[in-house]
Amino acid sequence: MNGAESLLETLINNGVEVCFSNPGTSEMHMVAAIGKTQGMRSILSLFEGVCSGAADGYGRMAGKPACTLLHLGPGLSNASANLHNAKKANTPVLNLIGDHAVYHKKYDAPLTSDIISLAQGVSDWVHTTDTAENLPKDAAEAVAIANQGAGKISTLIVPADCAWNDSVDPAPLKPAVPPVTVGVDAVDQAAELLQNGKTTMILLGNMGLSEEALSLADKIGQASGARIFTDTFFTRMPRGEGRCQVERLQYFAEMGVEQIKDIEQLIMVGTKAPVAFFAYPGKPSEFYAPGSELHTLANVDEDAVDALSRLVTAIGAESEKPRYTKLVKAGPGKDGLSPGTIGMTFAEYLPVDAIVVDEGATAGGACYPCSANAEPHDWLTLTGGSIGFGLPTAIGAAVACPDRKVVCNHGDGGAMYTIQSLWTMARENLDICVLIFANRKYQILQIELARVGAQTMNKKTLDMLDISNPDIDFVKLSEGMGVPATRATTIDEFNEQYITAMNTHGPRLIEIVLA
Amino acid sequence: MNGAESLLETLINNGVEVCFSNPGTSEMHMVAAIGKTQGMRSILSLFEGVCSGAADGYGRMAGKPACTLLHLGPGLSNASANLHNAKKANTPVLNLIGDHAVYHKKYDAPLTSDIISLAQGVSDWVHTTDTAENLPKDAAEAVAIANQGAGKISTLIVPADCAWNDSVDPAPLKPAVPPVTVGVDAVDQAAELLQNGKTTMILLGNMGLSEEALSLADKIGQASGARIFTDTFFTRMPRGEGRCQVERLQYFAEMGVEQIKDIEQLIMVGTKAPVAFFAYPGKPSEFYAPGSELHTLANVDEDAVDALSRLVTAIGAESEKPRYTKLVKAGPGKDGLSPGTIGMTFAEYLPVDAIVVDEGATAGGACYPCSANAEPHDWLTLTGGSIGFGLPTAIGAAVACPDRKVVCNHGDGGAMYTIQSLWTMARENLDICVLIFANRKYQILQIELARVGAQTMNKKTLDMLDISNPDIDFVKLSEGMGVPATRATTIDEFNEQYITAMNTHGPRLIEIVLA
Repeated sequence: MNGAESLLETLINNGVEVCFSNPGTSEMHMVAAIGKTQGMRSILSLFEGVCSGAADGYGRMAGKPACTLLHLGPGLSNASANLHNAKKANTPVLNLIGDHAVYHKKYDAPLTSDIISLAQGVSDWVHTTDTAENLPKDAAEAVAIANQGAGKISTLIVPADCAWNDSVDPAPLKPAVPPVTVGVDAVDQAAELLQNGKTTMILLGNMGLSEEALSLADKIGQASGARIFTDTFFTRMPRGEGRCQVERLQYFAEMGVEQIKDIEQLIMVGTKAPVAFFAYPGKPSEFYAPGSELHTLANVDEDAVDALSRLVTAIGAESEKPRYTKLVKAGPGKDGLSPGTIGMTFAEYLPVDAIVVDEGATAGGACYPCSANAEPHDWLTLTGGSIGFGLPTAIGAAVACPDRKVVCNHGDGGAMYTIQSLWTMARENLDICVLIFANRKYQILQIELARVGAQTMNKKTLDMLDISNPDIDFVKLSEGMGVPATRATTIDEFNEQYITAMNTHGPRLIEIVLA
Repeated sequence: MNGAESLLETLINNGVEVCFSNPGTSEMHMVAAIGKTQGMRSILSLFEGVCSGAADGYGRMAGKPACTLLHLGPGLSNASANLHNAKKANTPVLNLIGDHAVYHKKYDAPLTSDIISLAQGVSDWVHTTDTAENLPKDAAEAVAIANQGAGKISTLIVPADCAWNDSVDPAPLKPAVPPVTVGVDAVDQAAELLQNGKTTMILLGNMGLSEEALSLADKIGQASGARIFTDTFFTRMPRGEGRCQVERLQYFAEMGVEQIKDIEQLIMVGTKAPVAFFAYPGKPSEFYAPGSELHTLANVDEDAVDALSRLVTAIGAESEKPRYTKLVKAGPGKDGLSPGTIGMTFAEYLPVDAIVVDEGATAGGACYPCSANAEPHDWLTLTGGSIGFGLPTAIGAAVACPDRKVVCNHGDGGAMYTIQSLWTMARENLDICVLIFANRKYQILQIELARVGAQTMNKKTLDMLDISNPDIDFVKLSEGMGVPATRATTIDEFNEQYITAMNTHGPRLIEIVLA
């Protein structure tokens, strides 16, 4: 049994069953090993950023890592923007990077580079295997790290000769360290804050955003008067009928500051204190007022549900009844194609248990508030700010949950970063409906240009933020990669196309022309 | 004058006149500064890998750097695969990376990451500016570094507040350190080797591959009997009528070993000793026989033309007449669409002074030998092995040389990595003809799978290296991004379409179906 074969069996022993791959020559023995086994599903992408984004979506929905298979430093680089997003989402991901044979590295061949330096910027853990014998145990360790806490990015560099040389038996399951339970003081202090009469917000993220955590937080909010919030960008939120709602922090700093200006103390659960996405001249970086009391009940890797449950008891909120969202069908959008009317239709026909992957950006922004009372669903957002996350993440979510419809809301500018995703959707016949909000500009940047006080708004400047000239034809792009597509230029066209998509299995794209 | 404005004027003072941009919020003041000035041309791309590849093509042809404008760590990551290629090509490139304001970094906002770590893996020089006042002098230094030796990748990280705060006057031209002249010993030793009666090869690269260097090497070859070679993958080679020819090393290690098995000593000029692209079980990494004598006449950053010129004198080869290539028109391809017939047509109608950007991979490989006696042209290859180089590099070459036709030969698999390039070609109306060699598989990997001794060739394995299912329709992709396109399924169709393309200004794509 060679190293690659023992690696594969080790991964399967440790619960890894999907590989998002874009291999090259130095990964050929791993390709062959995957080909030999039934336990690992291999999904090919045409670009490594699709692999990493798909691993993010898979990890968020499956709660365990998929692996990526990437080709030396450049393959890792191409994957890195979406690894950055996955890292900020605390998604479990295992990267397998093929490298040159150990003895070949000294020659500085064309594909040689400093993989470790590239990997450290987007990983929580990086390790280079040194012999085929060590590969199985390194792989088990890598999976255990990926599963640690809320989830980690674990990167294992595998020199080609460690894959092709004789190895030892596969490693058995190595259990991950379970999330740490918070100390007594953390709960007691939170209880004290909630009972001191000051205005309080509880900010939930990661493990603090599960269905159970939301119910517990809602009880605490009712008993204490605290407002319950989530970050602007969160990893995964259960929403719609039967779930408890939370307020969402605004994106723009001055709006976020205004939104919580009356708050005197913040309790963080699974996340950290809220700050501005970007700095702006003369505006504060912190959302909370100077002098606010900050208390972390549970950090991102601690057991948020346990902590909230104990806090419920500590403040005597056991008897509160969670306020579960009721289903409201408000009717589809009509009278004009706009973000608002699209949002109404989006919510009205969103199927039960849909997964929404949201990179809708400015034009897609109305879908979130419109769907507060829709059928139960999960909502995934762009946690790391690196656009081109939506299409790949939709792939991973669809692979993890083959019986659920995935709806991917995407701005046109962002969609072009990883447009190759459409081909994988077609190849795997994934049940994904992509909505492209085509306003034909980087609208957020035109807004930001004014906000940062950069005064010049002449044609040359605006052209740098404009993606018309030529207009992109997403229907042709989609069909060119095998995904059926239509274009909506009126709300009636959109309604008809969206209803059809929600009632048809398989990939489909709707270009919504808003320009 | 704010930092961004002084930066821009500094760049212009230092000869930088093109910016390949994909900016975000943290670069908005640089966007505004570019908008205000006449001296900097801004070219927008839909993905950062297009920016970096374009900067590579520009630098190879212009002999000076363009700048890229990239958004924090993820923007740099997306650019990194083609920066890797540019680094291996020793192309001068200046990266400008917008970062968070200095005071905002501590908050670990969503887009915060370790940019320095990511940058070091793909740069020769990395620097973070700390104040607006220091930005102009840092920028002048960055350009000087980029222009050093054969060319360097110079990365300047610009925090947003260093761009928006008040700065000082722009910095003047800071001359780059000129290439170093080699010592007397290096020339004398080369002359001794050439006169000791052993079989010798001279291997040329980078500055050793200029038209003048080729002529000098040809004289040395005639006088000494040495064989003149270039690496398999080189930065830029002048070829065709009126240029001296060289042998090109084979790609596969065993073929390379066979090709130079009689060589006893190697003289390197502007490059290093030849090694295998990848390691293979049981095969050597070095092309040259054990015990060969290795001598570097000039390293990559030394003055190769001066060194060759002195070597001509040292061995008394001044009176040799360089054997300039004669134009041969052998007629277009006919009787079947194959790499060979395509290569004949390609060469027959290649315009005078064309620039060929070659990522033709397996199916496009015949174009190079076929065009040895074509009109004079320059040939650019994939120096770093990271596929997805061709389309962006063609953009940069076309921007640097607007009066020359660019022909970009591309494998279908590689083209999908940076397919967004087509949009920029349309937007800028660049004179580029893209030939897609569509064999609908990663053919090189199917060859490599067998070569590395990975035995399993079952359907699951081969599917990981196959990009049919679904077939990609490059005509639709191209039209979807505004580039006129046609499909050739016979040699007659190809001949007609290629002739039309060579006689029409502007971007155009031909999908050649070889599957």
